[in-house]
Amino acid sequence: MQRIAVLAGDGIGQETMPEGLRVMRAVAERFGLPLRFEEFDFANCRYYEQHGQMMPSDWKDQIGGHDAIFYGAVGWPATVPDHVSLWGSLLQFRREFDQYVNLRPARLMPGVRSPLAGRQPGDIDMWIVRENTEGEYSSVGGRMYPGTEREIVLQETVMSRVGVDRVLRFAFELAASRPRARLTSATKSNGIAITMPYWDERVEAMAAQYPGVGVDKFHIDILCAHFVQRPQHFDVVVASNLFGDILSDLGPACTGTIAIAPSANLNPTREWPSLFEPVHGSAPDIAGKGIANPIGQIWAGAMMLDFLGHRAAHDAVMAAIETVLADPAAPKTRDLGGSASCTQLGQAIAEAA
Amino acid sequence: MQRIAVLAGDGIGQETMPEGLRVMRAVAERFGLPLRFEEFDFANCRYYEQHGQMMPSDWKDQIGGHDAIFYGAVGWPATVPDHVSLWGSLLQFRREFDQYVNLRPARLMPGVRSPLAGRQPGDIDMWIVRENTEGEYSSVGGRMYPGTEREIVLQETVMSRVGVDRVLRFAFELAASRPRARLTSATKSNGIAITMPYWDERVEAMAAQYPGVGVDKFHIDILCAHFVQRPQHFDVVVASNLFGDILSDLGPACTGTIAIAPSANLNPTREWPSLFEPVHGSAPDIAGKGIANPIGQIWAGAMMLDFLGHRAAHDAVMAAIETVLADPAAPKTRDLGGSASCTQLGQAIAEAA
Ligand SMILES: CC(C)[C@H](C(=O)O)[C@@H](O)C(=O)O
Ligand SMILES: CC(C)[C@H](C(=O)O)[C@@H](O)C(=O)O
Repeated sequence: MQRIAVLAGDGIGQETMPEGLRVMRAVAERFGLPLRFEEFDFANCRYYEQHGQMMPSDWKDQIGGHDAIFYGAVGWPATVPDHVSLWGSLLQFRREFDQYVNLRPARLMPGVRSPLAGRQPGDIDMWIVRENTEGEYSSVGGRMYPGTEREIVLQETVMSRVGVDRVLRFAFELAASRPRARLTSATKSNGIAITMPYWDERVEAMAAQYPGVGVDKFHIDILCAHFVQRPQHFDVVVASNLFGDILSDLGPACTGTIAIAPSANLNPTREWPSLFEPVHGSAPDIAGKGIANPIGQIWAGAMMLDFLGHRAAHDAVMAAIETVLADPAAPKTRDLGGSASCTQLGQAIAEAA
Repeated sequence: MQRIAVLAGDGIGQETMPEGLRVMRAVAERFGLPLRFEEFDFANCRYYEQHGQMMPSDWKDQIGGHDAIFYGAVGWPATVPDHVSLWGSLLQFRREFDQYVNLRPARLMPGVRSPLAGRQPGDIDMWIVRENTEGEYSSVGGRMYPGTEREIVLQETVMSRVGVDRVLRFAFELAASRPRARLTSATKSNGIAITMPYWDERVEAMAAQYPGVGVDKFHIDILCAHFVQRPQHFDVVVASNLFGDILSDLGPACTGTIAIAPSANLNPTREWPSLFEPVHGSAPDIAGKGIANPIGQIWAGAMMLDFLGHRAAHDAVMAAIETVLADPAAPKTRDLGGSASCTQLGQAIAEAA
């Protein structure tokens, strides 16, 4: 039996998670998968309001032994500042469960309108591999002379050999397995002249071990421009924590799929559970209306199935998503130009899967 | 007499600068402007190859008393690593001359094809105000255990009250002067949870002093997505050094104008010279071919004229750029879909100005 910890989180997470589970249960039944879903009511802002922290102190005992975590979205800034809710949940999972790879696709899907002119489905198909545990997201730093004119705030970016090499290795392996075998590294070594030249050095060292992978690098500023101007160039893109964060919103934005893109936070050693979530956040502005798009959640579930070894079930879910997106008569949520509810779209995909 | 230090720099800077000067001289004559252009052959990689440094030791004496610096582009990675050439020139100017505002437009121009679907000239018209002297571009940090498996590299992000407030004030003043009076702040306080919440705090404090300015903020990841999905929303965008760098390439990319966008590095106190340059780099791949687009250089010159108090001359140059871009019969460089040379395009603008 594979045990999956389910955390719906805040806002639209409460609406997309039931649809994610609906589809997971449908394919689990169809393929006879040994999955058990266990829901936990923490790592959300309602929990914080009641307990003054995002999670119980024994959270690691409660979910650290599971095979995967299926997460909705977290954050409710009206009551809890984002940096408190995020560092008390998602960012803590990534670090404590050593989910050092964040893997996110940017893919032009049938039936989805791209904001870019003249692009067809198939034109854009890349994976963004983001370092997920260190780099610019550090907890080292602080303030001097607070509240005065001399106030100074410092925050350290931290790159370790171990941390950089392991995510690069994952990215090179992924690139080597793909037909185009191309890897692009995001850097900024001309401006961020201490940590980023180090990143470049490690990319070069790793590239020497993968002669079959074509490697290039771009500074993050021009790389963002290239995402808009020639997204078809990219196959696997590897980036530091912050640059990966930016590129994995921008990539889906260029494919018009920001509401449907998934995010897999992977611990490839499987010592701790990996975590699967939509890229989108809790979206307080549309929460409670039943109009959220559940595809990000469902696609994240598909990545989870794949990671748990259920490739056929993954393929069935992806085919169902594509079928429903491509079918003009199928229900569509508002962001896709339709007027269906979150539930209606979830049901349609569950039926097609 | 206003003295302008001219530094052509590397690569296509050698080709675009003569066109920039051609247009400046044409309007100086037409409007009777008291401008003197003085060329200096340093702050380029050829100088580095001969002297082992990018500039003579007395560079500050040589150009620190000028009224402005007109710069081409710098960098020739085949012989000098980018972080050496940039920190030995452009980034040093920004810091030593305390050019704490980097001001860059992203504007949809007539005759330029945007990669975004269905956008018209006028739809996109924003200013990006970038902090230009501190933040993520710090020179504080280093390595431990170099060359070993335990290697660790650290780099400090530094935000000071003085540094943050002065660029925010510039941005709020600019927003207040514009019809829409809207200011967007780029943040990442949910993830970069020490420096960026401080940035947010200072934005809030400054906003209280400008009740007429409509303020919003977005995390940099979703902000990049919005640039692609609804660029018409933005009026003035203020950002830290790194985020401003990213947005001021992405914005022009969305308007199709990355080869023609200018960058003004301003010291608003006028204690030291301000610096005007194209956004594009030295472009080694097309250098020496005479096909570079000189408009970034010329538009930078127009911003320089404005900063030096010559508003009418600025307007004439901008009108000339727009006329030539909009005229299908006018010469266009390759990036604009034509086959004219850098010189031909420069001449056409000089004649129209
Ligand atoms: C060349 C580089 C150091 C520079 C920067 O990052 O500031 C450039 O990208 C720019 O935007 O002026
Ligand atoms: C919510 C935020 C802290 C998070 C991040 O920056 O990692 C999100 O943007 C993401 O990409 O998962």
